[in-house]
Amino acid sequence: MQRILNNPDDVVDEMLQGFLKAHPDIVEATEDGRVVRAKQIPEGKVGVITGGGSGHKPAFIGYVGKNLCDAAAVGEICSSPTAKAFLNAARTADQGRGVACLYGNYSGDNMNVKMAVRMARKEGIEIKTVIANDDVASAPKDQRDKRRGVAGEILMWKAGGAKAAQGASLEEVIEAAQKAIDNTRSVGIGLTPCTLPAVGHPNFEIEDGTMEVGIGHHGEPGIEVVPLETAAQMAKRMVNIVLPDYPFVSGDEVAVLVSGLGATPVMELYVLYNEIEKLLSQEGIKIHRAYVGNYFTSLNMGGATLTVMKLDGELKELIDMPAYSMGFKQR
Amino acid sequence: MQRILNNPDDVVDEMLQGFLKAHPDIVEATEDGRVVRAKQIPEGKVGVITGGGSGHKPAFIGYVGKNLCDAAAVGEICSSPTAKAFLNAARTADQGRGVACLYGNYSGDNMNVKMAVRMARKEGIEIKTVIANDDVASAPKDQRDKRRGVAGEILMWKAGGAKAAQGASLEEVIEAAQKAIDNTRSVGIGLTPCTLPAVGHPNFEIEDGTMEVGIGHHGEPGIEVVPLETAAQMAKRMVNIVLPDYPFVSGDEVAVLVSGLGATPVMELYVLYNEIEKLLSQEGIKIHRAYVGNYFTSLNMGGATLTVMKLDGELKELIDMPAYSMGFKQR
Repeated sequence: MQRILNNPDDVVDEMLQGFLKAHPDIVEATEDGRVVRAKQIPEGKVGVITGGGSGHKPAFIGYVGKNLCDAAAVGEICSSPTAKAFLNAARTADQGRGVACLYGNYSGDNMNVKMAVRMARKEGIEIKTVIANDDVASAPKDQRDKRRGVAGEILMWKAGGAKAAQGASLEEVIEAAQKAIDNTRSVGIGLTPCTLPAVGHPNFEIEDGTMEVGIGHHGEPGIEVVPLETAAQMAKRMVNIVLPDYPFVSGDEVAVLVSGLGATPVMELYVLYNEIEKLLSQEGIKIHRAYVGNYFTSLNMGGATLTVMKLDGELKELIDMPAYSMGFKQR
Repeated sequence: MQRILNNPDDVVDEMLQGFLKAHPDIVEATEDGRVVRAKQIPEGKVGVITGGGSGHKPAFIGYVGKNLCDAAAVGEICSSPTAKAFLNAARTADQGRGVACLYGNYSGDNMNVKMAVRMARKEGIEIKTVIANDDVASAPKDQRDKRRGVAGEILMWKAGGAKAAQGASLEEVIEAAQKAIDNTRSVGIGLTPCTLPAVGHPNFEIEDGTMEVGIGHHGEPGIEVVPLETAAQMAKRMVNIVLPDYPFVSGDEVAVLVSGLGATPVMELYVLYNEIEKLLSQEGIKIHRAYVGNYFTSLNMGGATLTVMKLDGELKELIDMPAYSMGFKQR
């Protein structure tokens, strides 16, 4: 396996050390080695935290920063942070006005956040959660609570983080973040598998000449494996999965996020976005803001995700607010 | 080949269309379909332009923006923009105070920039150039004029763009950019080859279990092929090539840029940076600012580059200035 690593068991600790040293203007260490905290958090605001497994950079610690998350709990590669890390993230972000924990719908995270919430409340920290479930392909529409959270989480953090920065109450932050994720749908297409550092070979297969539609960020099976398509065909396929689910319709204003999965050149993401933009325009959907790049990855997986978020006046204001973290900088 | 493309011959045009549509707040199209221009260029400043082949995103168009480059000429995949595109970039960036063309040392670019400079001067545009040659491995130290420009170009654009934004004269911008690149050294290590879209298979080989030290951004041969090392060993190897060449010594303040080559997970870049930081600290070298991410890539090549720039008071001020482009955002 061709990679830059020392002992694979140390990858999370070493990555974290490198991250903290590279961005001392944005983040700082906490006593809990698995919790990263934003620098210079404005006083008196509601805390916004998240957390998740490692290997998805910039997610999750790359979204800790100004007007975004105040702290993130860090898990091992592709596995949930501990309940204690989520608790410590809540502790470090709490300023007496409560903490919004905005995270993705995975069984490990659900279990650990639940425990952390119970412990935090015992300590007198008011804490509420929003669980991202934007991945259309992971469960039918009438079972949205079973759907995974994927790149739509970024727009949830953006909205929740901005709301908190505006001085909103915990209720209001939770409402905004919940609306953000309720208005968001995503789908991913996998082209090549990823390799867990400690394993050293791909943990699932995507045959050359095929692509897996609806794949999850950890290689969770998609809805179908089909022959590899052109960018235009892929875009059409993704748009046809995402649009009807919400549904997004003519006249809607949206934010669009196209993220690479780690090993796909950014050039190709722009080719894909070009096709997506054409299709949305044809549908009469107006793109208010677009994000294209490696925003939520899966180690060295090839492929891309499409995320579309319906905007109303409030969400537009929240999405437009300046922000500054390692993975998300907007003036 | 597992990729997101339509007709490979259209990849540059389609990528450009997607890029322009995704970032209407940062860049705009020009009459020349192969020149991208910054939005809202402050009046009366010296123009700063660059250009290069495609497939290196964010380079080159990702560095067009506020306090960076005003325009970039876009070439086909891994080949120089035309002289006409460089000329048109100069035309669009010229405000009567002259244009600084800051580009990398490749024969095609040299030839086309030379022609463009001649044509621009005929039109009365005052234009001067700085040629980046930061890649230590590409020629001996006494033949620096033969060395390639690699990720150090980013710090040259940063310094030159900031100087122009300060209202400096063309002479001063050229001097600052020249000092920036003279103070900068880079080296790359390749882990996996890249694939030209129109070719469809890797155009060179890196055997599994080996790595190519000193590789160029287009797969130009390095100085040696050695067995794959740990991140710590790789960092040591890179630092041992870069530091003595300038030489960087104890007490120096530097900017450090660790860029992925396209397919290496960002997590691994932080592991590498962690080791590089330790080694520089041991040498008594102070890192004033660090950049870690996919800043200058080679399609889907695996591996990373290390760039170190010696800072003086002026360069520190220029590097620290806020900037905003697709590929480089700093508050």
